[in-house]
Amino acid sequence: MIIATTIQEVTDQINAWKAEGLTIGLCPTMGYLHEGHASLMDASVKRNDRTVASVFVNPIQFGPKEDLATYPRDFDHDCQLLEAHGVDMVFHPEPSEMYFDDFCTYVDMDVLSKTLCGKTRPIHFRGVCTVITKLLHIVRPDRIFFGQKDAQQLAIIRRMVRDLNFDVEVVGCPIVREADGLAKSSRNTYLSPEERKAAVILSRTIRLGQEICAGGERNAAALLEKMKENLASEPLADVEYVEVVDGLNMQPVEQFKEGDLVAMAVRIGSTRLIDNFTVGDPMIQVR
Amino acid sequence: MIIATTIQEVTDQINAWKAEGLTIGLCPTMGYLHEGHASLMDASVKRNDRTVASVFVNPIQFGPKEDLATYPRDFDHDCQLLEAHGVDMVFHPEPSEMYFDDFCTYVDMDVLSKTLCGKTRPIHFRGVCTVITKLLHIVRPDRIFFGQKDAQQLAIIRRMVRDLNFDVEVVGCPIVREADGLAKSSRNTYLSPEERKAAVILSRTIRLGQEICAGGERNAAALLEKMKENLASEPLADVEYVEVVDGLNMQPVEQFKEGDLVAMAVRIGSTRLIDNFTVGDPMIQVR
Repeated sequence: MIIATTIQEVTDQINAWKAEGLTIGLCPTMGYLHEGHASLMDASVKRNDRTVASVFVNPIQFGPKEDLATYPRDFDHDCQLLEAHGVDMVFHPEPSEMYFDDFCTYVDMDVLSKTLCGKTRPIHFRGVCTVITKLLHIVRPDRIFFGQKDAQQLAIIRRMVRDLNFDVEVVGCPIVREADGLAKSSRNTYLSPEERKAAVILSRTIRLGQEICAGGERNAAALLEKMKENLASEPLADVEYVEVVDGLNMQPVEQFKEGDLVAMAVRIGSTRLIDNFTVGDPMIQVR
Repeated sequence: MIIATTIQEVTDQINAWKAEGLTIGLCPTMGYLHEGHASLMDASVKRNDRTVASVFVNPIQFGPKEDLATYPRDFDHDCQLLEAHGVDMVFHPEPSEMYFDDFCTYVDMDVLSKTLCGKTRPIHFRGVCTVITKLLHIVRPDRIFFGQKDAQQLAIIRRMVRDLNFDVEVVGCPIVREADGLAKSSRNTYLSPEERKAAVILSRTIRLGQEICAGGERNAAALLEKMKENLASEPLADVEYVEVVDGLNMQPVEQFKEGDLVAMAVRIGSTRLIDNFTVGDPMIQVR
């Protein structure tokens, strides 16, 4: 596996692959990789001749009070996982390689980025759209892979690709979960043992929501009331939001339909966790 | 010459040219073409196997009180000029082809877009960066050509290309002027005969500024005082700004150097005209 730290190294390798007519998949990550990320790599390796992963904790998507400094990092472990999953090149730049001191161009989105996580993380999706634009230009992939766990991010990237005419296929991959249902996340490492147990309230509430939908409920307020009640049963859970939004534009809906998104952000202690399901998705397994 | 009105037509043709290994130049315009635009076409035809021009009055770069509705249009004449200058394809989309009703993704720039024209046209450069991003993705040119008349636009596009890692060479082309020195502009058509005569005050003041710089002046205040005095001699001229800014970041400077930009916006009647010179540029000819 090629380990590239400069944009030039990536460009040269991509040019060589393109000259051979090879297709390229890109899996952007912030590292500290888990089986969720691995599923993106597997999906890309299956559908492309070459797979590039990026491991970059993108500073411009973190707010001033967020966890940029403490975000977990383990590049050696990341490389082992990427190599084991057949990734051909990992791009692992320093922040200074991606952002000049006088960097001042941003890709920003209205509407979709203002709801859900965007309410408490006002610059987050601007940072995401900007870094993904840069990575798309550097790697020029045929397909780019994102996890459905960050459902709003995935919807925003799909919209960005449509609005700005990027020539790339956006592929969303299902949430990968722990045995008890907790969605895999690099931030799970922040949880104390007690918090880790409490954190299953998210996936249990997702499952409850799915069951209510399967029963025919299509009124958002009725669904959310029961989901909030369930979350309230866990004393360590501090709910930031639970909402039902249109699956394409991320705007709250009163009556929902298949394809719409039920999403939550919940703090367990000081750790902010997210989970979601799309109405009509297969029922998740929880213990 | 191919006339394409849909993104798909352009994409198909570009794919065919790329498959042949041909290089592509792009000249983005808002139409109502004059010799200034023609010089971009000539520069592109000289340096690329194929040249694409776009003719698109981009609604999102006009403010609510600006001249979007009245901006001059003459597509038949534009096509004659483009064909005569060897352009291979013109892209002339409807606004609805470029912007879905729920379009909401923008490329925005800090710093460079806040000075000069950005002060009175707060959304202008966001609209420019966004449409140029779209055109770069649609046409995927090797080189893109802009006139030096819109010097701030050119600096902004250069910065955008650098910051977002676009794989394209940005080529700036010198200002083309009327016999009396007035910079060619589609908006010159707005001028009454009397205003047209008065409008030469811009280029005469540019020439004066160049002469002062050639004499060794490097203090911005001293230069600007003399240029403003000259502009004030024309009763029909209403000065919006005359400034000296750093040639790269467009920020005002007190002492200037070769490569820095002296730029002005002046209203003649209700028509807003701009002109500029880069310190060290060849002296312009005026009558």
